[in-house]
Amino acid sequence: MEPTKYLLDEKEMPREWYNLAADLPKAPLPPLGPDGNPISPDMLAPVFPMNIIEQEVSAERWIKIPEEVLEILSIWRPAPLYRARRLEKMLGTPARIYFKNEGVSPPGSHKPNTAVAQAYYNKEFGIKRITTETGAGQWGSALSFACSLFGLECKVYMVRISFEQKPFRRLMMETWGGKCIPSPSEETETGRKILAQDPDTPGSLGIAISEAVEDAVTDTSGKTRYSLGSVLNHVLLHQTIIGLETKKQLKLAGEKKADVIIGCTGGGSNFAGLAFPFLADKIAGQEMDVIPVEPTSCPTMTRAPFSYDHGDTAEMTPLLAMHSLGHSFVPPPIHAGGLRYHGVAPLISHAIETGLITPRAIDQLECYQAAVDFARTEGFISAPETSHAIAATIQEAKKAKEEGKEKVIVFNWSGHGLMDLKGYHAFFAGHLDNYPLPEDVLQKSVASLKKYPKAQL
Amino acid sequence: MEPTKYLLDEKEMPREWYNLAADLPKAPLPPLGPDGNPISPDMLAPVFPMNIIEQEVSAERWIKIPEEVLEILSIWRPAPLYRARRLEKMLGTPARIYFKNEGVSPPGSHKPNTAVAQAYYNKEFGIKRITTETGAGQWGSALSFACSLFGLECKVYMVRISFEQKPFRRLMMETWGGKCIPSPSEETETGRKILAQDPDTPGSLGIAISEAVEDAVTDTSGKTRYSLGSVLNHVLLHQTIIGLETKKQLKLAGEKKADVIIGCTGGGSNFAGLAFPFLADKIAGQEMDVIPVEPTSCPTMTRAPFSYDHGDTAEMTPLLAMHSLGHSFVPPPIHAGGLRYHGVAPLISHAIETGLITPRAIDQLECYQAAVDFARTEGFISAPETSHAIAATIQEAKKAKEEGKEKVIVFNWSGHGLMDLKGYHAFFAGHLDNYPLPEDVLQKSVASLKKYPKAQL
Repeated sequence: MEPTKYLLDEKEMPREWYNLAADLPKAPLPPLGPDGNPISPDMLAPVFPMNIIEQEVSAERWIKIPEEVLEILSIWRPAPLYRARRLEKMLGTPARIYFKNEGVSPPGSHKPNTAVAQAYYNKEFGIKRITTETGAGQWGSALSFACSLFGLECKVYMVRISFEQKPFRRLMMETWGGKCIPSPSEETETGRKILAQDPDTPGSLGIAISEAVEDAVTDTSGKTRYSLGSVLNHVLLHQTIIGLETKKQLKLAGEKKADVIIGCTGGGSNFAGLAFPFLADKIAGQEMDVIPVEPTSCPTMTRAPFSYDHGDTAEMTPLLAMHSLGHSFVPPPIHAGGLRYHGVAPLISHAIETGLITPRAIDQLECYQAAVDFARTEGFISAPETSHAIAATIQEAKKAKEEGKEKVIVFNWSGHGLMDLKGYHAFFAGHLDNYPLPEDVLQKSVASLKKYPKAQL
Repeated sequence: MEPTKYLLDEKEMPREWYNLAADLPKAPLPPLGPDGNPISPDMLAPVFPMNIIEQEVSAERWIKIPEEVLEILSIWRPAPLYRARRLEKMLGTPARIYFKNEGVSPPGSHKPNTAVAQAYYNKEFGIKRITTETGAGQWGSALSFACSLFGLECKVYMVRISFEQKPFRRLMMETWGGKCIPSPSEETETGRKILAQDPDTPGSLGIAISEAVEDAVTDTSGKTRYSLGSVLNHVLLHQTIIGLETKKQLKLAGEKKADVIIGCTGGGSNFAGLAFPFLADKIAGQEMDVIPVEPTSCPTMTRAPFSYDHGDTAEMTPLLAMHSLGHSFVPPPIHAGGLRYHGVAPLISHAIETGLITPRAIDQLECYQAAVDFARTEGFISAPETSHAIAATIQEAKKAKEEGKEKVIVFNWSGHGLMDLKGYHAFFAGHLDNYPLPEDVLQKSVASLKKYPKAQL
């Protein structure tokens, strides 16, 4: 019997995270404050604990993973690397397809890799309570899980419309002891103001971020901090354990190198987690196609400019140098909620600009068909975000067939879709759309970026 | 760092299932037909393929697992064995607690262990289409998954009220290509009759079984058979891979023996899967407490007589020798849908009667509290059925503390609760009840058994 998956023992878990910033061919651009000048680390101190801020700005190549973090990660890590033999057979491809199964974590995605680390550093710094926002609920549940295991309080501001439409995600958070309330809420100044103006607002991620940050910075005890689940350098750093494990597992599978690396990309943390350790090899000269995948309806990487922009709709965050559709962009209602973000991580934007990675956009319908083919060959039901990585993998496997090449394709299976089955149902019923973004709408949205400094590497 | 879990390589998967029937101190009682005489294997031929019927009546101790079955099982097997160190710490117990994680299968429970085997044997026998019933949906999704990977059609009759209340389980089945319809349906004689009498009936498992069996036996092409997810000998047999793996993993963990074996028990397949391979050692003289756990509201093993009874409400199945509350027993609406069954597997009933195992009943509220403690220490959210095994484990760990004994306790974590979060919400809101079964209701229900032959070992 040929092996289905490649496991590592807990003893072989990576002991250090990999920091791509140390190897980038050009220096990353710093975040800017409201005055247009680079912000200093201590300006972030009311928001994040200082040990996390140090990681955010670190240029060290390798950063030690604390034992306490490894201990919790070992609940599901090392995550198995699978060979997708039945999918290969269905496609008749000479390519060898591997996927890293991040859906085995208790919350069901890669998100806890950083949630656990962030909860640990907050606890180390003496913090008792963490606030955050969540859209569809993946991040809120990952952070509730992590806080539960470190004995921290967790308060999640969940976009009101999602709070009402996706009650099960909220119930997951509650089961781990997290407190989840709909945003806007009566508990913050921001929330009260918005409710006074529009009591029936469905809420937005921008509002929820504002509320979570306000909650953290206004706690006069100093025992509360805010936590973010993607985009920032330290979040991507914590995810690199994915790619570091994958490299060891490919060796176990007898592969000398990977030819194609694929991950779906919203804020960018799951893509970065798999891809960054491979980019180190690419920077060192190895040939490799590295492909972050986004929806055609939210084409941040493939059609938006590289510019300074706010990370949130409410303009509370520093300006980040990134590909952005403009922070007021309203993405269409695709099911991949985690890919409906106007920007993308500065480190990923940097890698696009320097030609290290080649983004790709794929239609929603093609992604769902890919996820159905995957479920019926490999057995796992994928999250709608993850389906984008599968669709790109299938494109690459077909290309390898046309070219007659035995390529090694690796993608990050970022999470299961058991909490998101409505999208499959809509797909089977023929109710889904691709929502391609018209050029005039795109132009109007990115025009808002003109007032910010240009991003120039 | 102390190990969190014990993995086995795919090469170490057990190659044979263990058949407890070969080692029982007394001969098992045969199923009886409507005339009160033992039924012959060929009477079951229109319902099950002959290769499965042979397993059902086999007295061989070891039965080879086909390579094709192992290949699909390897998607998630060997399943990890965990040491529950944080739970131990919370309880301050000297006991070492281990749990076998069967929630890692794509459908999220132990059910696919037999679904895959049954799909394989049906395919081998030339069958193209399998019918079954499902209550809450665990079994229907496991069989849809298995049929998908073997290219078989799958038709699931789902109890109408569950079909309406639990749409996500149905969507899982659809994603794997299974066809799931509410029962009673217009597609069978049984369904049409019942709908004519009562168009608004919520349906029942008994009706759904009748429809699924009728569908199979009336297909004149001979290409359809019926499949059952628990109770029968061959189903329990296929689950023994759980306990066989666990024994190897306990050795890896440095344990010479297990002192207490625990599993929640409805029809009995997940309990049997873990416990039967250990019972072989107990029969050979090793001291061990083996505890199947049921809800106090459905006390089949702890308060019902050992008698012949039908496996279904509609009296279509042969008479089985088992502990039964009477096949017309209507269990209260506890959340552990998989434990709401009037009977329990004949092999388990036999083990109770011969003193090999000691059943225990636990209240719903105690089970939910145990599941919450487990989620907040070990990280995993448990199915409501599984919570019964956790509650018994906590009872045993506290007992070990009182006695000051370093016991080794092993329980089967039969599945995750991500599709069943409403129960947790009701628990936190204080809306749950224990529904203890009053003695007069019990007596009235078991009185129906008087007309059937006595079960006497």
